[in-house]
Amino acid sequence: MEYRKIKDEDQPDSGPVDGDIESSRGKSPAPISSSIAALGAGPQWKRKTIVTFALTLLTSSQAILIVWSKRAGKYEYSVTTANFLVETLKCFLSLAALARTWKNEGVTEDNRLSTTINEVSVYPIPAALYLVKNLLQYYIFAYVDAPGYQILKNLNIISTGVLYRMILKRKLSEIQWAAFILLCAGCTTAQLNPSSDHVLQTPFQGWMMAIVMALLSGFAGVYTEAIMKKRPSRNINVQNFWLYVFGMAFNAVAILIQDFDAVMNKGFFHGYSFVTVLMILNHALSGLAVSMVMKYADNIVKVYSTSVAMLLTAVVAVFLFGFHLSLAFFLGTTVVSVSVYLHSAGKPPR
Amino acid sequence: MEYRKIKDEDQPDSGPVDGDIESSRGKSPAPISSSIAALGAGPQWKRKTIVTFALTLLTSSQAILIVWSKRAGKYEYSVTTANFLVETLKCFLSLAALARTWKNEGVTEDNRLSTTINEVSVYPIPAALYLVKNLLQYYIFAYVDAPGYQILKNLNIISTGVLYRMILKRKLSEIQWAAFILLCAGCTTAQLNPSSDHVLQTPFQGWMMAIVMALLSGFAGVYTEAIMKKRPSRNINVQNFWLYVFGMAFNAVAILIQDFDAVMNKGFFHGYSFVTVLMILNHALSGLAVSMVMKYADNIVKVYSTSVAMLLTAVVAVFLFGFHLSLAFFLGTTVVSVSVYLHSAGKPPR
Repeated sequence: MEYRKIKDEDQPDSGPVDGDIESSRGKSPAPISSSIAALGAGPQWKRKTIVTFALTLLTSSQAILIVWSKRAGKYEYSVTTANFLVETLKCFLSLAALARTWKNEGVTEDNRLSTTINEVSVYPIPAALYLVKNLLQYYIFAYVDAPGYQILKNLNIISTGVLYRMILKRKLSEIQWAAFILLCAGCTTAQLNPSSDHVLQTPFQGWMMAIVMALLSGFAGVYTEAIMKKRPSRNINVQNFWLYVFGMAFNAVAILIQDFDAVMNKGFFHGYSFVTVLMILNHALSGLAVSMVMKYADNIVKVYSTSVAMLLTAVVAVFLFGFHLSLAFFLGTTVVSVSVYLHSAGKPPR
Repeated sequence: MEYRKIKDEDQPDSGPVDGDIESSRGKSPAPISSSIAALGAGPQWKRKTIVTFALTLLTSSQAILIVWSKRAGKYEYSVTTANFLVETLKCFLSLAALARTWKNEGVTEDNRLSTTINEVSVYPIPAALYLVKNLLQYYIFAYVDAPGYQILKNLNIISTGVLYRMILKRKLSEIQWAAFILLCAGCTTAQLNPSSDHVLQTPFQGWMMAIVMALLSGFAGVYTEAIMKKRPSRNINVQNFWLYVFGMAFNAVAILIQDFDAVMNKGFFHGYSFVTVLMILNHALSGLAVSMVMKYADNIVKVYSTSVAMLLTAVVAVFLFGFHLSLAFFLGTTVVSVSVYLHSAGKPPR
């Protein structure tokens, strides 16, 4: 039961840079599928495993950091400024990596920063989608409480699967679809608590908003994958740079909309602590891991990775904070584990 | 949440003929597999579907009857006498069916009632296993409360699958094993309520007893299937007759052990009502349906059938008694549905 604290506190208005992993996760589309062939076995497989692993670890430590910072006292900094700094840091890290590449390999067609309107025009779209989604988040709380919203967030899993199929035209086998439904059911089960039943009383508008938000978030994710894979030979750091530049721009808009007064009166860094800095660092690294998963793996891998991370977090929290695991958590974990197995067992024959 | 009432009240000491569906369900083993070939497509397939359907309907109406009888007031009759009457009724119905067969087809090698020691010697075993299991039931409540026991009862699903594989040597594909684990997790999830977490505090002895009880019950089920299928051409009513004769005998022993004083002082039929009679009728018919599933289908079909019945019951209870369905119930139902799908999608190639 206790474990839920992690999720409940992972809120857009109370949590720190929450939502950022999402705003970094998703940014733009194009007809794919030929570019996917570029990913095969061998070193690609190894790279895919490493980035998946990194994403899982970073995502689970994220939630731990959130709990830790809550324990250390509430944070009073503005979430929008933290999100802005995360985007800036990612942008900076991408540039640093690029500088090294230029030094080693020289500037080539694939790693030059300059671009065409045609290439760059898709990058703002995911950031814009997340801006809309984050604004919607403020309205949905009129219909659903915070723990209920955590439950509804699992709709993302289904919307990602559906949009992945529709937009990227990549097939999941029937067994893999079954596994995906189980992933959603298992994650939700693991998060059940005695008050979860309230979510069934969500009014129609609440359900609609939750579905729209899930679609926006899923669309942004799938769009980002499409952008990253449309030009498989393009250096990932150039792609990241453009993604994050627009991320910075849209988060600047968010500061203006939501926290202009607070920033003007109290200053940009008001309420920042050591834990805040750690969280910003973690979110930036997670964001980079998400980009790599989008380029070298796909949205399905990402959803599995973050779901497993959610479960890992709860187990780690037992040791770190003495949380108790509920029977629902064990059952949900069982279902998610079977789902992971089925996803790989159900691979369609090539 | 409310829905759980059905399950919570379905208790061996408070419920009516509870546990009987199990004592009728399981009775005897032998190397099988060749006899299974006798079941193929065509009319067999139709028969299999009908008996599975009948079992599902009878099992779900069983729980409804239990809730109904509870609402009408508590029942004060002794459970052991009701169990004895169920066995007697099944025995009588099998004999009646046999009499008709004799009249139509004459007495043949396959439908004669007389038998050999070799054939009949296996029939008492399942009934004996259930007697032991039912006695254990009185001790396990020292370690687990009633709703907790309902949760632990789902271990039957796993033990049945394992013993089915080990004793009957019939294979489930990996996907079907995954489906079976999901069935257990889904049924348990559907039964979750705010107090379910207590079950995690079950002491070691309680776990051991629950596992032993699950094994006894699974073994009795698999043994019955083995008996029924060892002689595929043997008339099912003869097989039933011998099963139920021993069921009567062992339930008579149970009356002596548990309710001798009550029966002597208050009479055999003390506390019987119209609902009691209905329940005895229902249990007898369910018992016959279980026998048919064992002969024409298998234990796996039976487990799926009774699991789906459990979910159906809850839905019917919503309409009949105004119960509310919990989010956990929806999630559990989703997982069970996917499991049913995977069981058929995962059929090993012949």
